[in-house]
Amino acid sequence: MNQQASPAIDANAMIASLVHDARIAQQIVGTSDHQQRCAALTAAARAIRAQTTAILDANAADVTAAEAGGMAAAFIDRLTLTTARIEDMAAGLEAMTRLADPLGAELARWTRPNGLDIARVSTPLGVIGIIYESRPNVTVDAAGLCIIAGNASILRGGSDSQHTATLLADIMAAALDEVGLPATAVQMVPTTDRAAVGAMLTAVGGIDVIIPRGGRSLVERVQNEARVPVFAHLEGICHVYVDRHADIDKARAIVLNSKMRRTGICGAAETLLIDRAIADDCLGLIAADLIAAGCQLRGDAAAMTHCAAMTQAVEADWHTEYLDKIIAVRVVDDIEDAIAHIGRYGSSHTESIITESDSAAARFFAGVDSAIVMQNASTQFADGGEFGMGAEIGIATGRLHARGPVGAAQLTSFKYVVRGNGQIRP
Amino acid sequence: MNQQASPAIDANAMIASLVHDARIAQQIVGTSDHQQRCAALTAAARAIRAQTTAILDANAADVTAAEAGGMAAAFIDRLTLTTARIEDMAAGLEAMTRLADPLGAELARWTRPNGLDIARVSTPLGVIGIIYESRPNVTVDAAGLCIIAGNASILRGGSDSQHTATLLADIMAAALDEVGLPATAVQMVPTTDRAAVGAMLTAVGGIDVIIPRGGRSLVERVQNEARVPVFAHLEGICHVYVDRHADIDKARAIVLNSKMRRTGICGAAETLLIDRAIADDCLGLIAADLIAAGCQLRGDAAAMTHCAAMTQAVEADWHTEYLDKIIAVRVVDDIEDAIAHIGRYGSSHTESIITESDSAAARFFAGVDSAIVMQNASTQFADGGEFGMGAEIGIATGRLHARGPVGAAQLTSFKYVVRGNGQIRP
Repeated sequence: MNQQASPAIDANAMIASLVHDARIAQQIVGTSDHQQRCAALTAAARAIRAQTTAILDANAADVTAAEAGGMAAAFIDRLTLTTARIEDMAAGLEAMTRLADPLGAELARWTRPNGLDIARVSTPLGVIGIIYESRPNVTVDAAGLCIIAGNASILRGGSDSQHTATLLADIMAAALDEVGLPATAVQMVPTTDRAAVGAMLTAVGGIDVIIPRGGRSLVERVQNEARVPVFAHLEGICHVYVDRHADIDKARAIVLNSKMRRTGICGAAETLLIDRAIADDCLGLIAADLIAAGCQLRGDAAAMTHCAAMTQAVEADWHTEYLDKIIAVRVVDDIEDAIAHIGRYGSSHTESIITESDSAAARFFAGVDSAIVMQNASTQFADGGEFGMGAEIGIATGRLHARGPVGAAQLTSFKYVVRGNGQIRP
Repeated sequence: MNQQASPAIDANAMIASLVHDARIAQQIVGTSDHQQRCAALTAAARAIRAQTTAILDANAADVTAAEAGGMAAAFIDRLTLTTARIEDMAAGLEAMTRLADPLGAELARWTRPNGLDIARVSTPLGVIGIIYESRPNVTVDAAGLCIIAGNASILRGGSDSQHTATLLADIMAAALDEVGLPATAVQMVPTTDRAAVGAMLTAVGGIDVIIPRGGRSLVERVQNEARVPVFAHLEGICHVYVDRHADIDKARAIVLNSKMRRTGICGAAETLLIDRAIADDCLGLIAADLIAAGCQLRGDAAAMTHCAAMTQAVEADWHTEYLDKIIAVRVVDDIEDAIAHIGRYGSSHTESIITESDSAAARFFAGVDSAIVMQNASTQFADGGEFGMGAEIGIATGRLHARGPVGAAQLTSFKYVVRGNGQIRP
């Protein structure tokens, strides 16, 4: 082993090489016209459909290995592709081509008294690192969004989906090449060595932003170790607050939907807060709806008086993202108490107030520091597609650059373009 | 010394305490109305004028110490306050009150087919750390911009301006208190121990962004050590490119102004690139203008043939931010060669093309990845005030969140406000 480089140095050198190629490719994709970027996505969609059998075969190899490794059923489900899921990926790429060009958009433009014409114009963000787990569609969604916004991507998928993800990344790269763009604008990290993740997280100046897609432990590692900026949410502890001015029918429908439509998504409600002034009128009804749908309720003492089936919540419940058919329930004194609870236990993701009072809603909107605040709507709408922003690569809860759904427009930066006719500064 | 904490632990604990108070204060300032934030700045301006004598006394103590320490004349000048400079600080605060409220602005708003009304609304950024050197006005400018944008600031001035900066920070804090806002929204780090800077740079989750104001070594340390996001530019190696389609009179005036109006600012031009096709027509004239104004020229071989007084440039010249009466000059083959030079040696700050061809300008704007790109205008306009954006706290050259002049609007984040009437997700 004399003179042999350590794995960490190997990983750094390997990522540096990918970064080098990515930066050159990004210059070209970032200055290509919209039509060419769209053509790349259209070519990729066509290739995905044409290679459905090969993709299913690669995926079967991953699934077989995962089953042999004793992975849980939910994990296997996330990993498994079907013809329908493959078609969804292709259609998703085509949908991205129908968005307005994220690049070259005039975000603002004004003229100064001296005649200088100043425009703020959207530009690519640069090289984007995506670190993800088992869902194979992330490869296509993330690479596609990066391409349409003029960025290069460096993808690091989970070891369990490596066959599928590598084939899909190859298809994306080949589509770039087919339309005359550099294939290296989409690169898959060619190893599942964990040191490669560390090298990506510290590639300051080489990778402009890292987006982790996966469970809490992945996101936590990325947030803790990254020297590169990160767009992410650690968890979605989303709250529904039923205010004293709520319409009870709306409250019932929205709480049920926020919790139970899909319990495994980050926009699913995890905690229900009920204004003490309306608890007698609605908490029993809301609890019965949830129980009928198979949900467990864990409440504080005041909440438990409204529902015999409710068990006692402990402190940890207010901090927990169940992602399951469980909800924590607390009776609060008023809207200020609700805002304080969310400030203490929330994750700055999505919170909804149910109220007919616009002044109560305004207070909630101002007092709750979350990426998304809602009035009389289900937290399950927290999604780029539902917002009309097109495909998204996740939800960000930080306050810098991207916040809420991260779609193509959030993967851009901007520059100032100043047009003069000879102005000099006095 | 048994059981005594190390200085680093002391610094971390001290910054943690400031952060704790800042976050509470920020919640209050961030949800206060515009009128109250303006009242704080107006009160501070009044107090600065009223305490001019005390400010001059504090400043004299700093200046005397700096002189005794043998600091350079330029340093002493940056440190020294005059009645006029004090009035400028007060007037600067009042000007901030005349800007549109940076908070609560609807950045976008649209309605979905299901009736959901979605708005993207500006919000405070949070707690902002300012690390700066000798200029006492940074205390007032930075604290004022943070207040108007609903943020709290933690200020760490240089040891040389500590008397002046501490008094000015006290005035800002007292003005907050006078209008019923928490004084701890502006806090000065009460030590010049360098460990305090390290503690600020690693206060992830406590400080939302760090803005360094000072020389290259300060910015370099901040960028290298910070775990917290940073808005900064390391240097301004700004280029003027005289294209073959240039108007020669405009080129002469703009090059002279870009280099010589003030040589010490980050927007001053450092390198002149001349298209070979127009070099015979204009380089001699431009060089004569610069020499007449006292500028030294360092050129490549082709440039030197146009000016006998030009000395030979070495590789380091293309990398150098002179901040002095020196300019590097290179003859390039064409616009692509100019773009390649800027890509290799530039600092992504500000570059200007002199051309009457809008297609050449469009190519320059697309090919140059700088925060500010200009056509037929002096690089010395790279300034928030000149852009009509109001006071600024610096120029950022990163691609995340803030780019170009960092003013009040760049010290905000946003949230999505979703208004429904009972919508649930199918």
